[in-house]
Amino acid sequence: MAKDTYVLVHGAWHTGELLEPVATHLRQRGHVVHCPTLAGNRPGDDRSKTGLADAARSLTEFITAHGLTDVRLMGHSYGGMVISQAAEALGGRLRRLVYWNAFVPLNGQCLNDMVPPVYVGLFDQIAAANDGAVTLPYPIWREAFINDADAELAERAFAQLNPHPYRTFTDRVQLATELAALQVGKSYINCRQDTALPHSMPWHPRLSERLGLFRLVECEGSHELCFTNPALLAQKIEEAGRD
Amino acid sequence: MAKDTYVLVHGAWHTGELLEPVATHLRQRGHVVHCPTLAGNRPGDDRSKTGLADAARSLTEFITAHGLTDVRLMGHSYGGMVISQAAEALGGRLRRLVYWNAFVPLNGQCLNDMVPPVYVGLFDQIAAANDGAVTLPYPIWREAFINDADAELAERAFAQLNPHPYRTFTDRVQLATELAALQVGKSYINCRQDTALPHSMPWHPRLSERLGLFRLVECEGSHELCFTNPALLAQKIEEAGRD
Amino acid sequence: MAKDTYVLVHGAWHTGELLEPVATHLRQRGHVVHCPTLAGNRPGDDRSKTGLADAARSLTEFITAHGLTDVRLMGHSYGGMVISQAAEALGGRLRRLVYWNAFVPLNGQCLNDMVPPVYVGLFDQIAAANDGAVTLPYPIWREAFINDADAELAERAFAQLNPHPYRTFTDRVQLATELAALQVGKSYINCRQDTALPHSMPWHPRLSERLGLFRLVECEGSHELCFTNPALLAQKIEEAGRD
Repeated sequence: MAKDTYVLVHGAWHTGELLEPVATHLRQRGHVVHCPTLAGNRPGDDRSKTGLADAARSLTEFITAHGLTDVRLMGHSYGGMVISQAAEALGGRLRRLVYWNAFVPLNGQCLNDMVPPVYVGLFDQIAAANDGAVTLPYPIWREAFINDADAELAERAFAQLNPHPYRTFTDRVQLATELAALQVGKSYINCRQDTALPHSMPWHPRLSERLGLFRLVECEGSHELCFTNPALLAQKIEEAGRD
Repeated sequence: MAKDTYVLVHGAWHTGELLEPVATHLRQRGHVVHCPTLAGNRPGDDRSKTGLADAARSLTEFITAHGLTDVRLMGHSYGGMVISQAAEALGGRLRRLVYWNAFVPLNGQCLNDMVPPVYVGLFDQIAAANDGAVTLPYPIWREAFINDADAELAERAFAQLNPHPYRTFTDRVQLATELAALQVGKSYINCRQDTALPHSMPWHPRLSERLGLFRLVECEGSHELCFTNPALLAQKIEEAGRD
Repeated sequence: MAKDTYVLVHGAWHTGELLEPVATHLRQRGHVVHCPTLAGNRPGDDRSKTGLADAARSLTEFITAHGLTDVRLMGHSYGGMVISQAAEALGGRLRRLVYWNAFVPLNGQCLNDMVPPVYVGLFDQIAAANDGAVTLPYPIWREAFINDADAELAERAFAQLNPHPYRTFTDRVQLATELAALQVGKSYINCRQDTALPHSMPWHPRLSERLGLFRLVECEGSHELCFTNPALLAQKIEEAGRD
């Protein structure tokens, strides 16, 4: 059995701990799995000051500090911005980039460039009222993010989210090489009932095809499959991450 | 276990009886389920005179006569026109609107505004020759509506359909509030092999996103999952209808 | 149980032998199944001289030589060009055309008219360097054609492919009647993770809807489901091919 090294990078409002149930399934299949929490989402982090470069640097430092190589680096949602920004610095340590319903930026884009204007307006308001930290209103979470959960799980998962540093949504990535031209394996996992982005403005193929040649892996599920079916997500991460 | 109240509204050419296999599965899960047959689709109804307002009124009268509250109101296909027209009148009795591969009109639209022109032309001809009643040619039914059935089931289900009052396809909804702005829970069930509308002009996201914030639920199946897999449909209605 | 007659037509780089695992499953369900290898893909065939008309003629000759009638004729990928070109000549011998992630041409189109320009450029280069035979680079095969396989199966299947006569990609079909108007049953099987054509320029509904009234059948899987899940493919061929 393959014993591969995975680093799973969480999305906005999440922490690495919330990916541990997924990691457990991957470890049971023989893999080494790390779930770091990015700068900006840790308990004491200053939400008003953390930007995208800080988050990306916290990831590269984690990977180099642990001496990881041949890394299969997965990013979820906002985590796609972070792994995209970190990819060049990680260089030879990377085996494959895996995007799970994640943002795939062109050079110079920020996360907000890829979401519906109505969300940008909402986030602007919330962050302005919360010292630069953005939170997600529960009705949006329940209907558009975790639509495959029952109410009990939707509420329990919501209680585990943390305020997110809004600067990471407006900071622009700086890429010397566009991702389509980057010489590394790339995969995209698309959960098909993910309406965190509306399907008229979807994750796949709108954002996934920016990767150039990439491997598509799909499954049933919402944006929050890490809560609703971590075993299925682990299986799909392996199908996306293997050689 | 939740004991919720569901009202299931059939589509064109159907009756409430044809949803009873679905209702049975929902009742086995503890719910109260009603499947009224709309005005215009009952045995003695005058197909030449029944319009959309008549159908909607027959639904609101059913719900008020039975004293139903906290209703999870599902409409299938044409039934989406009817629940949309009825929603305001039902007001506080509604808990959630559920559209199953159903039409979602903007104020002032009729059903025919949302279907391919080739179908409108065909329906015009058939209704003109049948005193205002429209029927569905078997080849269209078999290939585009019930594509997941075998021939035996396709024919048996076809034999249970009834001529449909065509005025309900050309009457325009009158909505004081567009559905996107209506303050009630909303869900959309999308059967993915439903080609009753061509996928170049699809149910989802083209029509579903008119609901504003809504919950997407999907499954495998054709436009006629009530015949081909009523157990799966019941499961999806519950996932769509729960809080 | 139905005992239907199927002819399964392989895609580019393939042979009929590679469809035998699928045929075995169909035969176990009582059907008669043939998997001819088209002119141009046989061991001794001259790749520089075989065109689309040659391939189509080899198919019609196979069917007439075997005296087959009521044929459910399936074409995969490039095989869609061949069954489209052969359909008129086969006339009354055909019961239904089944396209499995296959090209559906308009009269006068060639295969290359329906693929991304980047692929045409690549194929031009490869064929020019290989005496008119085109091959598929392994990274494209592994990521975009057989994305649902593990590396071992991806490599084993790749080793079974044969150089393909490029003229069959540039020769134009000659159809007296456009396929949408052809009076025969038609079905389209869409494997949903098939990215051999990018999903921004997809098989379905872009090409499938050229069939006019047709039956859609879908399942999970890549362009190479014949290798990754022949049992599932056989089931879908039966759902597509039955009356």
